[in-house]
Amino acid sequence: MRTMKKLSLLISVLFAFYVFSHAQNNINKTEGEPASTNISGAEYPRILPDNRVIFRIKAPDAQKVQADLLKKYDMVKDATGVWEVTTDPIVEGFHYYSLFINGVPICDHSSQTFYGMGRMASGIDIPEKGVDYYLAKNVPHGQIRQVRYYSNITKSWRRAFVYTPPGYDIKLNERYPVLYLQHGGGEDETGWPNQGKVDFILDNLIAEGKAKPMLIVMDRGYAVDPNAPKNDRESGIRRMLQGNQTLTDVFIKEIIPTIDKEFRTITDREHRAMAGLSMGGFQSFQITLTNLDKFAYIGGFSGAGFMMPGTDIKEMYNGVWTDVEVFNKKVKLVYMSIGTAEPERMYQSVNNFHKELEKAGIKHLYYESPGTSHEWLTWRRSLNQFASLLFK
Amino acid sequence: MRTMKKLSLLISVLFAFYVFSHAQNNINKTEGEPASTNISGAEYPRILPDNRVIFRIKAPDAQKVQADLLKKYDMVKDATGVWEVTTDPIVEGFHYYSLFINGVPICDHSSQTFYGMGRMASGIDIPEKGVDYYLAKNVPHGQIRQVRYYSNITKSWRRAFVYTPPGYDIKLNERYPVLYLQHGGGEDETGWPNQGKVDFILDNLIAEGKAKPMLIVMDRGYAVDPNAPKNDRESGIRRMLQGNQTLTDVFIKEIIPTIDKEFRTITDREHRAMAGLSMGGFQSFQITLTNLDKFAYIGGFSGAGFMMPGTDIKEMYNGVWTDVEVFNKKVKLVYMSIGTAEPERMYQSVNNFHKELEKAGIKHLYYESPGTSHEWLTWRRSLNQFASLLFK
Repeated sequence: MRTMKKLSLLISVLFAFYVFSHAQNNINKTEGEPASTNISGAEYPRILPDNRVIFRIKAPDAQKVQADLLKKYDMVKDATGVWEVTTDPIVEGFHYYSLFINGVPICDHSSQTFYGMGRMASGIDIPEKGVDYYLAKNVPHGQIRQVRYYSNITKSWRRAFVYTPPGYDIKLNERYPVLYLQHGGGEDETGWPNQGKVDFILDNLIAEGKAKPMLIVMDRGYAVDPNAPKNDRESGIRRMLQGNQTLTDVFIKEIIPTIDKEFRTITDREHRAMAGLSMGGFQSFQITLTNLDKFAYIGGFSGAGFMMPGTDIKEMYNGVWTDVEVFNKKVKLVYMSIGTAEPERMYQSVNNFHKELEKAGIKHLYYESPGTSHEWLTWRRSLNQFASLLFK
Repeated sequence: MRTMKKLSLLISVLFAFYVFSHAQNNINKTEGEPASTNISGAEYPRILPDNRVIFRIKAPDAQKVQADLLKKYDMVKDATGVWEVTTDPIVEGFHYYSLFINGVPICDHSSQTFYGMGRMASGIDIPEKGVDYYLAKNVPHGQIRQVRYYSNITKSWRRAFVYTPPGYDIKLNERYPVLYLQHGGGEDETGWPNQGKVDFILDNLIAEGKAKPMLIVMDRGYAVDPNAPKNDRESGIRRMLQGNQTLTDVFIKEIIPTIDKEFRTITDREHRAMAGLSMGGFQSFQITLTNLDKFAYIGGFSGAGFMMPGTDIKEMYNGVWTDVEVFNKKVKLVYMSIGTAEPERMYQSVNNFHKELEKAGIKHLYYESPGTSHEWLTWRRSLNQFASLLFK
C-alpha cells in the first residue's frame, strides 16, 4: 500500500502536466464539434451545425467576461464559475478572437495560438462546407522547412519557411520554380504554414495535376535597417511606406540568393513568382514591379497596388506601365483578389485598382471570393487559384 | 487635404494590426533587457542583470493581477491602469509562466507562446551566463523540416519535425544516423524545435567537430488507439502507463519506417538513438529497451527507467538486464541526467535508478546539471552532452 502510494505520488508529479492537458476529456459533450483550431483534447469552443460557436471559460472571480469574435458577446456565469456564450452564426473562414476578463483581452487556453493581431492570438477555423482543397488528404505530402540566415542589411537572424513539393528529395536532377508568398500586417512568417494551410493546398493541387510542383518561400514581411534615421524605425506606418526599400533590398539581395543557394531552384524570371495578402500584397506589387527582371508572376490577395487617389497609373512603380504593350508581353500573370464580405473601404480599394488596370489595358486576373471577409479563407481560395496558374 | 485624409484612413485600416504590434516601441525603456522570448518589439518582460524580472500588463478594470513564475507575485496598479511587479532573482533557464487576472491564468501578450502545461503558455528564457552553445552563431545551419504522415494505428494525421544537418542537400551520397528525441508531459513535438533550440545546439556542435552530422526526429509523445477500451483512452495516467504499447507500436511500425523512407538514413541499430526528457525519457527507455534490435544509444533527461519500488531490476523491460555482460556489450550508451535544483522527488527517482544500475553493473553515464531545475536548460545541456557522444 505504502509502495503504491509512493508510486502514485511520483506519477502525480511527473505527469501532472499531462493529466492537466487531458482533463477536458471528462466534460460532457453537447451538440456540435470541437473546432479544429482547439488544442488537442479541448471540447470548447464548439461549432454548431449552423456555425454558431459556444465559448467557455472557468473564471469564478471575474466580474465580466466576454467573447470577441467579429463582435463582442457577454458571457454568462454558472454556479461553478464557468462562463459561457453561444454566438450568432459566424461567417465561414479563419478568425482571430479574444476572450475578455474584466476588460483585458486574453487568449483562450482551449485554442491553439497564432501570430496575428500583432501578438499571439486565439483562432477559430469555421470550415468551408463542401470543399476539401485545404484539408489533409491521402496524397503524397511535401515538407515545410525552416531555414535560418543572417541578414547583413538588418543585422539580424531571420528565418524563412520553405514548402518543398513531394518528391523533392527523390528527383534529385529536377529543379523547381519558386513562389515567394507573404503574410499580412500583424502576422509573420508562420501565417501561411499555420493559418494558410499552404502545404495541404499545394499537396492537393499537385496530386490532381492542377499545379506544377514548386517551392513556396514564406519569409518575414518586416525589415528594419538599423542605420536608418530613428524616426523611420519607430513609426509603424512610416516604416511600412518608407521602409519598403529595406524590405525590397532584403528580398532581392539576401532572401532570393539564399533560396537559390540552398534549394534546387530555376533562377530565371519566368520561374519566379511573388504574391502576398493584405500588407503582403502591397509589398509583392512593390517588389515585383520595381524588379521585373526577377519576376514574371505577381499576386495580391486583399491588397495589391498602392494607388494614391489622383495618381496617374503611368507614374506608379517607376513608370512600369508607361508602355502597356511591353508590360503585357513581359509579365505572365497579374492576379488580384478580394472577398465580397470585406470591409467596404478595403473592397473599394482593390476593386478600384482593378478598374484602373482595366482602363489602362493592363492584363490581369481579378477574382472576388464569394461571402468571405478579410481573413484566411479568402486567401486560401486565392492561393488555390493563383498557384494553379503559375509556371505554365 | 481630402485626398490625404482618404489615404490616411485607408492606411489606418490596412495597417491597424501592424501599428498595434509595434505600439510598445514608444514606451520608455528602463534598465535590463527585453527577454528573448518576447514577441518582436515587446519591451516587457525585462530581465535585470541579477535575473530579477519585471512584468507589466495593462488591465485598468481588474481587481487583482499576479505574475506566476515559480511562485506567485502580486502586481501593483499605477494611475494609468498598468500593473507591474519585479520578481525575485529567477534561476537560469526556460520557464513557463502565467499572469493571473482576477484569478484566471492567462498568457502574456508580450510573450511568444509555447505548448507546455498542456496548453499554449507564455515562456521566459533567463539566459545561461557565459555560454553560447544554444545561440545562433555564424556557422553553417541545418534545417528543421515538418513531415506529415498518416498513422494507421491511431487513425490520425501526425507530424514529426526533423532536423537535417548542414550539407544534407549537398552531400547527396551521404547517409546519416538518427536520434529520436522526445518532449515531456504537457508538451508536444514543437518543444525541442522551439524551447529546446535543437538546431542551434547541433549546428554549433557539428561546426566544432564535436558531434557527428545526424538527423534528429522530434515526434509526438502521445498515441491513442481508437479501438482500445474507452477507459484506457480517457484517463491521462492510465493512458501513459498502459498506452505505452500503442506509442511503441507507432514508433516501431510507423515513425521509423517513415523516416527511413523519406530521408537518407543509416538503418542499422548502431546508427539509431533515442532519448527524451521527463515523460519522454521514460518512453525512450521503454521503447529502446524492449527493441534493442533497433537501438544502440539510449538517453533519459530528468526521467529514465520507470522503477516500481521493490522491483528487481532483472525483471524490468522483459528481462533485458538478466545478462548484464551481454547488455553492456550490445548497448553503446545508456545516458541519464538530472538537474540538481529539480524537485526532490524527481531528483531521487533518477538518482536512485542510477544507483540501481550501478549496483547491477550496468554501464551508463550519469550527469547532474548544476543549479538547474526541471526545465529546458537542464535538457539543452543534456542534449549538448548526449549528442556529442553518439555514433562514435
